[in-house]
Amino acid sequence: MSARHERRPSGVVVLSGGLDSTVCMALAARDGQPLVAVTFDYGQRHRIELERAAAVAAHYGAEQLVVRLDASQWGGSALTDPSIDVPDASAVGSGIPVTYVPARNLIFLSVATGVAEARDADALYLGINALDYSGYPDCRPEFVRSFAETARLATKRGVEGRPIAVRTPLVDLTKSEIVRLGLDVKAPLHLTWSCYRGGPRPCGTCDSCVLRAKGFAEAGEVDPALG
Amino acid sequence: MSARHERRPSGVVVLSGGLDSTVCMALAARDGQPLVAVTFDYGQRHRIELERAAAVAAHYGAEQLVVRLDASQWGGSALTDPSIDVPDASAVGSGIPVTYVPARNLIFLSVATGVAEARDADALYLGINALDYSGYPDCRPEFVRSFAETARLATKRGVEGRPIAVRTPLVDLTKSEIVRLGLDVKAPLHLTWSCYRGGPRPCGTCDSCVLRAKGFAEAGEVDPALG
Repeated sequence: MSARHERRPSGVVVLSGGLDSTVCMALAARDGQPLVAVTFDYGQRHRIELERAAAVAAHYGAEQLVVRLDASQWGGSALTDPSIDVPDASAVGSGIPVTYVPARNLIFLSVATGVAEARDADALYLGINALDYSGYPDCRPEFVRSFAETARLATKRGVEGRPIAVRTPLVDLTKSEIVRLGLDVKAPLHLTWSCYRGGPRPCGTCDSCVLRAKGFAEAGEVDPALG
Repeated sequence: MSARHERRPSGVVVLSGGLDSTVCMALAARDGQPLVAVTFDYGQRHRIELERAAAVAAHYGAEQLVVRLDASQWGGSALTDPSIDVPDASAVGSGIPVTYVPARNLIFLSVATGVAEARDADALYLGINALDYSGYPDCRPEFVRSFAETARLATKRGVEGRPIAVRTPLVDLTKSEIVRLGLDVKAPLHLTWSCYRGGPRPCGTCDSCVLRAKGFAEAGEVDPALG
C-alpha cells in the first residue's frame, strides 16, 4: 500500500473509485506515467468505493496510498454521520445538500499536495466538475484556482519556483460528456462506484446515482457497472 | 475524544502541545470559549507532543479531537521518516530544513476548516510565526492570507457570506515575545514540548530546542518545562 516505487511519479491523482475520478485517472495516465493514486478512507458509509479505487489503481499499474482520515470524528455530513440519512435525489432541492462533507476537497487537495511534494511529482489531478456539481462549493473552478495559489505559497517547490500544477480536466464537462470521454479513453468504467448509500448494489435513487444514470442516458450509452 | 459538546464552540485551535500552539490556545481562550482543540497524530517521532497537547486542552476545559493522518506513508521529512536524521541546529544551515513536513500547515488548516465548519465555529487559530519560522514556507503570512481566501471559496459558510476567520496571532512575533506573551496570559508553558527528537527529555541541540532556549533567554525567563 505504501511501497515506494523507484521512479519519480509524473502525477498524483485523487482517486475515489467513482466515475469522475476514474476518468480523471485515465486522463492523467494519458499525460504520463507512473502515477500515484491517493484514496481517502474518511469514514464514508459507501465503503465499496475503496475496493473500486484499488481496482482502478491496479488497472493503471499505479501505486496507491490509502490515507485514513476519519471525518466522522467531526461529522456534519450525511456521508459520514450515520444519524443523517442520505436523501433521494427528488428530495435534495436547491442549495448545498446534506451530502456535502465540510472542506472535503480542500482536505483532499492539501494531502495530495503533501504527497506530490514528498514524491516530487509535477502535477496533481482531481476529478471534480462544476456543471453537475450538486451544489458543492469546493467543486468550483474559482476554488481550484485559489487552492493552486495557496499550495504554491505553502510548499518548498513553490518557493523554488516549481509549483505543483493542479489539474481538474473534468471541471467544465457535463456528466454525459464525462461518460463519452471516459469511453473514448478506455477508462474502466465497469469498475466504478457512484452510489452514496452503502448497499451491495447502487440504490438508483440517491443524487449521485441519478446524476450518473442521466449522464449515461444523455450519452446514449449503457452503464457497464450495472451489467 | 470525539464526544460532542452541546455548545457551539467559539473557535477551533490547532494544538500541537508545543510552546507556540499553547500560547495561541491561551489567546483563543481569551477571545472566547468553549474551544475545540485539534491535535494531529501524523506519525511524528516526538510522540510526547501528543500527551502534552492533551494536558493543555484539559487545562482550558476544551474538547480535543485527535486526528490521525499518517504522513509517514508518503515521507519526505525528518519528523516522520525514520531514515532521515533530525540534525543539530548548528548543522541546519540556510534554506528549508529537512524537518519541513510537506504541506503540513496546509493540511492542518484544511482539516481545522472542516472541523470549524462542521461545528459552526467562527474562527480557527494556528500558532505559526514567520520571524523565527525556521525556513518553513507554510509559516508565512502570505500563505495564511491565501489560505483564508481558498477556505472561503471551499466552504458552505463562505458561500453563505460567513467565512471562517483564520487567526495567527503569533505570526509577527519573535520567540522571546511569544514567551513573554505566554507568561502574561498565564499559558501553561510548563506543559509544553518543543524538541523534535523523541527522547524522554528535550535534547537541547535540535533546531526547535535551540530556538526555544533562545526565546526564554532573550525574554530573561527560565523555561518552566526544564524544571
